[in-house]
Amino acid sequence: MDQSVSVITASGVSKLDRVAVEEPLQITIDGHPVAVLMRTPGEDEALVMGFLKTEGIIRSKTEIRKLAAEANHALAFLTDEVEWDVTRLSRNLFSASSCGICGKATIDAVMGEQTVLKDGPRFAHSVLLNAPALLREKQVTFETTGGLHACGLFNQSGELLAIHEDVGRHNAVDKVIGSALLDEFDLTNCFLLVSGRVSFEVMQKALAAKIPMVAAVSAPSSLAIEFAKQSNQTLVAFLRPPGFNVYSGAERIS
Amino acid sequence: MDQSVSVITASGVSKLDRVAVEEPLQITIDGHPVAVLMRTPGEDEALVMGFLKTEGIIRSKTEIRKLAAEANHALAFLTDEVEWDVTRLSRNLFSASSCGICGKATIDAVMGEQTVLKDGPRFAHSVLLNAPALLREKQVTFETTGGLHACGLFNQSGELLAIHEDVGRHNAVDKVIGSALLDEFDLTNCFLLVSGRVSFEVMQKALAAKIPMVAAVSAPSSLAIEFAKQSNQTLVAFLRPPGFNVYSGAERIS
Repeated sequence: MDQSVSVITASGVSKLDRVAVEEPLQITIDGHPVAVLMRTPGEDEALVMGFLKTEGIIRSKTEIRKLAAEANHALAFLTDEVEWDVTRLSRNLFSASSCGICGKATIDAVMGEQTVLKDGPRFAHSVLLNAPALLREKQVTFETTGGLHACGLFNQSGELLAIHEDVGRHNAVDKVIGSALLDEFDLTNCFLLVSGRVSFEVMQKALAAKIPMVAAVSAPSSLAIEFAKQSNQTLVAFLRPPGFNVYSGAERIS
Repeated sequence: MDQSVSVITASGVSKLDRVAVEEPLQITIDGHPVAVLMRTPGEDEALVMGFLKTEGIIRSKTEIRKLAAEANHALAFLTDEVEWDVTRLSRNLFSASSCGICGKATIDAVMGEQTVLKDGPRFAHSVLLNAPALLREKQVTFETTGGLHACGLFNQSGELLAIHEDVGRHNAVDKVIGSALLDEFDLTNCFLLVSGRVSFEVMQKALAAKIPMVAAVSAPSSLAIEFAKQSNQTLVAFLRPPGFNVYSGAERIS
């Protein structure tokens, strides 16, 4: 989603430019405000669904009784069976201006609560190498604005099942995971490709959705690698055909 | 700050790669935990100083009685004169996985509390065009890892006064502003250059430090532009010599 703005160029000429839209979305769960995301509007249902999943609040879409997104507010109501702890969420999301949610303690907590992924599945070398071109082809708004992160979901055959763009890299991941929940894809046989860098939190979100592999066009952080190793995830970065680097879980690439 | 990791390339060869370090930093103020930043270690004092300034908690460094940073914990103690409201901060930072801190209500609140910047100063066309090369020259860790955002502080003569790198773009901005506070630079005659995109929050942090101009190598978001216009800040983006676009406050460029 983009909009037109008027700019003045270096040579003093006035022209129109397309920029990526950034707007706040307040999420409330059962009436409790839990987060404000700065996001690109337009796919709020998928974003909220993915956010609830990757923050460990819901396991499946059936745990959402009602989800209403209107303007910049999203109201989620969960079924009575869902137990969630607003203070735990607050602590996790008690975050700062950069993309941070965790402390080392939180990593341990996540590792303690979540199963380490089983070995498999395998992804072909060629599937990985073909993915960036498929993603780029569909990055509609990036082409016009240069201002959006993209995330794509691919299966073992290399098909692009879903792609979403957002001003926030984690939102793009949440949108993809949310849309996959809505469409009931089996994420355990899929991988994510992100258009930029890969931080700890991207790996954490992928793990929460049981996605075994994350590939990135750009660099990984040290903590992303450490987390991937601990949770038996495959982490590929600098995926720029004909090359890529595997930082964790190389046995999944055949 | 970077570290060495072992990777496997697409052709199956094992080699060493340098990656940017990402680690959590928990910030407490007068004993209250207020935020966990995922940051690149090494310049924690500047980061915390900048964070306290751009979140509106302190006005100058003299309001900090003591600042101790050790491992992944930073403890700040403020003078008795400083009034800060942990609930306000919590609400502001009650953020999510992406880089979000605000709602529209918060923007209004910020605009209501903060003075709109006065006109001036002016920056020469040539100063702007020379800045990216100066920044790039000093981006030490980016060169080796590809994994860090950089932010530089320039004066009207085009001198690079400070540069910091971080896995988080907002942390890089906070580090620069914090180090400028430590060195007692007059920020009202300076501008920031960021290596990536510019979001609402970067403009907000610059405004909190009374910095009149932000330039970015990549794209601005719609809300960054809107915020810059409302606060009379100059916003330059796609600064890629010989070109750039001015999205707000063109009268500061001569």
